[in-house]
Amino acid sequence: MNKLVIKLTGKLFDKTSLLKKYVDLFRELGKKYKLVIVTGGGNTARKYIETARKIGVESNYWLDTIGIIASRLNSYLLISSLYPDAYPKPVEDLEELCKAINYARVLTVGGLIPGQSTSSVALEVAEAIGVKSIVNVSAVDYVYDKDPVKYPDAKKYIEIKASHLIKILEQKQLPGEYALIDIRALELAIRSGIIIYNVYYRDPGNVVKVLNGENPGTIIYPE
Amino acid sequence: MNKLVIKLTGKLFDKTSLLKKYVDLFRELGKKYKLVIVTGGGNTARKYIETARKIGVESNYWLDTIGIIASRLNSYLLISSLYPDAYPKPVEDLEELCKAINYARVLTVGGLIPGQSTSSVALEVAEAIGVKSIVNVSAVDYVYDKDPVKYPDAKKYIEIKASHLIKILEQKQLPGEYALIDIRALELAIRSGIIIYNVYYRDPGNVVKVLNGENPGTIIYPE
Amino acid sequence: MNKLVIKLTGKLFDKTSLLKKYVDLFRELGKKYKLVIVTGGGNTARKYIETARKIGVESNYWLDTIGIIASRLNSYLLISSLYPDAYPKPVEDLEELCKAINYARVLTVGGLIPGQSTSSVALEVAEAIGVKSIVNVSAVDYVYDKDPVKYPDAKKYIEIKASHLIKILEQKQLPGEYALIDIRALELAIRSGIIIYNVYYRDPGNVVKVLNGENPGTIIYPE
Amino acid sequence: MNKLVIKLTGKLFDKTSLLKKYVDLFRELGKKYKLVIVTGGGNTARKYIETARKIGVESNYWLDTIGIIASRLNSYLLISSLYPDAYPKPVEDLEELCKAINYARVLTVGGLIPGQSTSSVALEVAEAIGVKSIVNVSAVDYVYDKDPVKYPDAKKYIEIKASHLIKILEQKQLPGEYALIDIRALELAIRSGIIIYNVYYRDPGNVVKVLNGENPGTIIYPE
Amino acid sequence: MNKLVIKLTGKLFDKTSLLKKYVDLFRELGKKYKLVIVTGGGNTARKYIETARKIGVESNYWLDTIGIIASRLNSYLLISSLYPDAYPKPVEDLEELCKAINYARVLTVGGLIPGQSTSSVALEVAEAIGVKSIVNVSAVDYVYDKDPVKYPDAKKYIEIKASHLIKILEQKQLPGEYALIDIRALELAIRSGIIIYNVYYRDPGNVVKVLNGENPGTIIYPE
Amino acid sequence: MNKLVIKLTGKLFDKTSLLKKYVDLFRELGKKYKLVIVTGGGNTARKYIETARKIGVESNYWLDTIGIIASRLNSYLLISSLYPDAYPKPVEDLEELCKAINYARVLTVGGLIPGQSTSSVALEVAEAIGVKSIVNVSAVDYVYDKDPVKYPDAKKYIEIKASHLIKILEQKQLPGEYALIDIRALELAIRSGIIIYNVYYRDPGNVVKVLNGENPGTIIYPE
Repeated sequence: MNKLVIKLTGKLFDKTSLLKKYVDLFRELGKKYKLVIVTGGGNTARKYIETARKIGVESNYWLDTIGIIASRLNSYLLISSLYPDAYPKPVEDLEELCKAINYARVLTVGGLIPGQSTSSVALEVAEAIGVKSIVNVSAVDYVYDKDPVKYPDAKKYIEIKASHLIKILEQKQLPGEYALIDIRALELAIRSGIIIYNVYYRDPGNVVKVLNGENPGTIIYPE
Repeated sequence: MNKLVIKLTGKLFDKTSLLKKYVDLFRELGKKYKLVIVTGGGNTARKYIETARKIGVESNYWLDTIGIIASRLNSYLLISSLYPDAYPKPVEDLEELCKAINYARVLTVGGLIPGQSTSSVALEVAEAIGVKSIVNVSAVDYVYDKDPVKYPDAKKYIEIKASHLIKILEQKQLPGEYALIDIRALELAIRSGIIIYNVYYRDPGNVVKVLNGENPGTIIYPE
Repeated sequence: MNKLVIKLTGKLFDKTSLLKKYVDLFRELGKKYKLVIVTGGGNTARKYIETARKIGVESNYWLDTIGIIASRLNSYLLISSLYPDAYPKPVEDLEELCKAINYARVLTVGGLIPGQSTSSVALEVAEAIGVKSIVNVSAVDYVYDKDPVKYPDAKKYIEIKASHLIKILEQKQLPGEYALIDIRALELAIRSGIIIYNVYYRDPGNVVKVLNGENPGTIIYPE
Repeated sequence: MNKLVIKLTGKLFDKTSLLKKYVDLFRELGKKYKLVIVTGGGNTARKYIETARKIGVESNYWLDTIGIIASRLNSYLLISSLYPDAYPKPVEDLEELCKAINYARVLTVGGLIPGQSTSSVALEVAEAIGVKSIVNVSAVDYVYDKDPVKYPDAKKYIEIKASHLIKILEQKQLPGEYALIDIRALELAIRSGIIIYNVYYRDPGNVVKVLNGENPGTIIYPE
Repeated sequence: MNKLVIKLTGKLFDKTSLLKKYVDLFRELGKKYKLVIVTGGGNTARKYIETARKIGVESNYWLDTIGIIASRLNSYLLISSLYPDAYPKPVEDLEELCKAINYARVLTVGGLIPGQSTSSVALEVAEAIGVKSIVNVSAVDYVYDKDPVKYPDAKKYIEIKASHLIKILEQKQLPGEYALIDIRALELAIRSGIIIYNVYYRDPGNVVKVLNGENPGTIIYPE
Repeated sequence: MNKLVIKLTGKLFDKTSLLKKYVDLFRELGKKYKLVIVTGGGNTARKYIETARKIGVESNYWLDTIGIIASRLNSYLLISSLYPDAYPKPVEDLEELCKAINYARVLTVGGLIPGQSTSSVALEVAEAIGVKSIVNVSAVDYVYDKDPVKYPDAKKYIEIKASHLIKILEQKQLPGEYALIDIRALELAIRSGIIIYNVYYRDPGNVVKVLNGENPGTIIYPE
């Protein structure tokens, strides 16, 4: 059974009816693939981190930890919908993943350790289980070279090399909102030859398109 | 060092500035007491459970589990504010509590298992570590015999026997909002002789009053 | 493969030749069902709790914990007979159950946490894995409305609603020996729609009868 | 704080009033020493192993495992009496012991792995925490060179070298009942230079005598 | 699927091209058998233990522990070559083995606890999972009655009873290098009726020969 | 008690007599500080990774995992020398660290997860426990702007800003040997305001100098 790694933007977990469609999709995909779904922290993460700051927390370790727990709470929405096909808790480290993938059909992962994004997690997951591509269901439709809101001449990429995207990110011309992936994730993709299919999260059909060989967003090649 | 068990209503975690006052209080209390703080799930629990229902989850086990994870996310707000005094994760079972209380000064606990309230958790905690009273920081100011909003003649109790309160709860004349504690928690209180000091959550000073021997709310006696 | 939850009275573990018959039955059932067997503590639990009291233990938490460990020792009699089909240890929490049921054919569970009966455990197990009925192999043959030893007019129920049985139990006219199930277990049954087939433990054939659609004891409906 | 390792014969757990005296002793000793108490399986182990055999268990692994679980149930009698001074569960491996001894005052250990006696466990414990003597509270009063019941000329040892005792044991002239320690335990004693103070279990005062430098039984020297 | 337990001498892990041949063999055997491979510590163990002694470590517990960790590092060479067929970490206790063997095809085990050899581990493994023979891939080609280097008349055994070999080992006429197995391992073999096929490690074909019913080394019978 | 985080180059573990001096130093420092020591993988890591590649392992996840296990084997050399002051195993995740630091005086950490250096681990450790500086005991004496072996005009830094060093590293003019720290570690240092004291590993006195306020190497400021 082939393995499929999908990263979901945390934004999805605020859109209940869209989330339901993804759950239905995963139920179908779970029949054909071993699914590993990486969930972002989204609004809950942001809100709790903000509260933590307001009550005096300054440590990046703890702020990140709160974000990780929030991303796992999002994982539980998928688990509760997909059990008994789903592994009954979010995977908390890669060794647990490597074990559980032998007997569970759907696994969820939130953040793993402070100081890294859930995008990096998705690449670590792919590396650990030997998968050569991931689908990044993102809050951004395409990779751009500049902020498309500010710059009408921003270039939209259908394909891009990871090394090229790293350079764009180093120039920091993309606001957080448009920086759909971080440098560390791209470096992992390059070192292990993993293709990233970036698709817009508003339409679950985009995931199906990728599986059918189409490109509804931006393909990031590990070069 | 004396042990002090405090149950916090989940509502507190939506009121950031009030929460900050409690954190300051716990910082002080942590110097004099071994603190175990039980956190409710509050709005986050309710919101996630609602989302789970909407995407098709019917299992009470999974709905309760989501509530437990949410209550632990609330615990992390306290942990991140109080570390290194705080044990770095919410305690997940009573054996872990019995171990950790030997070397951590502040411990947090969210829900423990599906099918029981965090009020019951507070009583289980007290039983496990041999404490004979708990402070229940509650969204309700006093114990009433009827819904005080509907019934102008509702009786407010300054003191009440647990067995009496069980009878009131069995009659189900108190709406969820006013049922500040459940029968199982009261039964545990009776069997192990644990006094419950119920205080209103809007004023952290109420906890101090209890520690000073005053009664700012309702005392529930284990009889 | 269908799942089957069976609760065994602790009394069974004192009757070696009867226990052997159950083991043989489980070996057969394990070919057709995923089996989860909940074991009571029985005489070993009672004896150890009594010893604990005599050497000065008063804490309900610790007395219950001793009962839980004794119930797990009973589980090991089944495990040692049924391994490699059996999961090699008693399940200690519901998350472990939800994981292990994906790769083990027979699972055992003793007590889970202090303050609740192994009957409640059986209902929690059914809730967690989504099973809609359980077989309660009990030291009592039928549900009665009064102590049948004391009252010749005690009514024997072939069928009863859980809510009705709760009322009988609240009246406390049944001695411990006849109170084959507790209120909390019945409440879990009602909230999750789980039928309880109560059968007498002296004849393993009773379990087979239930599986064949017969009623050799009392059916408790979740209403 | 000095560490003290005491091995208790399983027989003690059938003698409630004697057990109570040991508990009182340990409460006192726990003020002056870090205590590690190794508990034998005794009658419960024997009874459960016998039942397992009768229901068809032949595997030595599983029979030994049942004995280990029974020895841990005995540990719980001590834990429940000595908590919060006691670590709240029997230690299950030596790494756990090496951790817990830093924050718990009294630790209990039952069997560790199939295929070895709890006497060996006591020596492994001493090795792991760097203790150079243990008190073996035994069902036999002294070391003999032959079965003292059968042979009126059996020699009673006040002191003996471990290597000498190994030779006696290899000749198998001591029935199980009198073989108070096994060869592997003695080999561990020799390799790590650990003195074994063997004392009769009927009088808790014997342990105090050893601590006061007296010899109420047999000293086994690691030579 | 039949289970196959193979013990590998630690020496193998210094011979990279030979190790590769074994990996290829295990890849093939993993299709027909559930494989449990026990890895010795070899040179890495010896070197680290020597370093530990030089920096002042005297405790046998810690020296053995270092040997165990080294043997697990050797296990990781097999795991990394055989994943996803291999369980992703060395098994650390027998309960973990009994669980994992239900869903992993290849398991590795290094040392388990201080004070015993990896040969004993191999027998414990066989006992735990109910296997009646093991292949001991050894640095010695045959069992001898004396050191074959020193004594030209040393007898080479094609078959030997375990009880006979125990006697030879008790006489200590075999230097460490030739003592391919220890007494405790042999005692476990006898008590559980496990045949040991000792074969020379230089030729992986020897394992195949054993599986084909040939005897390329010494068979040790559990008598 | 102040906390002190020290990162040790893996090279140290090949130099036994130098290692012994560090152990003596840590024994002293352990009286004044809570010590967390991060150990590199050194030669053992390199050798095992090379062997793994030769037997066909291509996955970066597994190659990194082998390096992590090797770095933990190095940790055990320190643990075995410093126990009972040392926590009895290398810490495997940051939550374990946050717990254990409350009761152990010396903790060791090897690698944590694949895809990151042990230098990054040292910064993660400092972040987690709230320490604002670390000592990096390195195989390189100073930070340079170019390879000092190739370029006689290479500049040696006594102080440098982390952001400046990041730029030097991005230009990749330093061979692996001289790249004593990686970009991710420096980014963590900047985000959490952690000073890195880089000192040459050949003289343990360098660590003492740093603690006395001297600068025997290069200070990297988190700017």
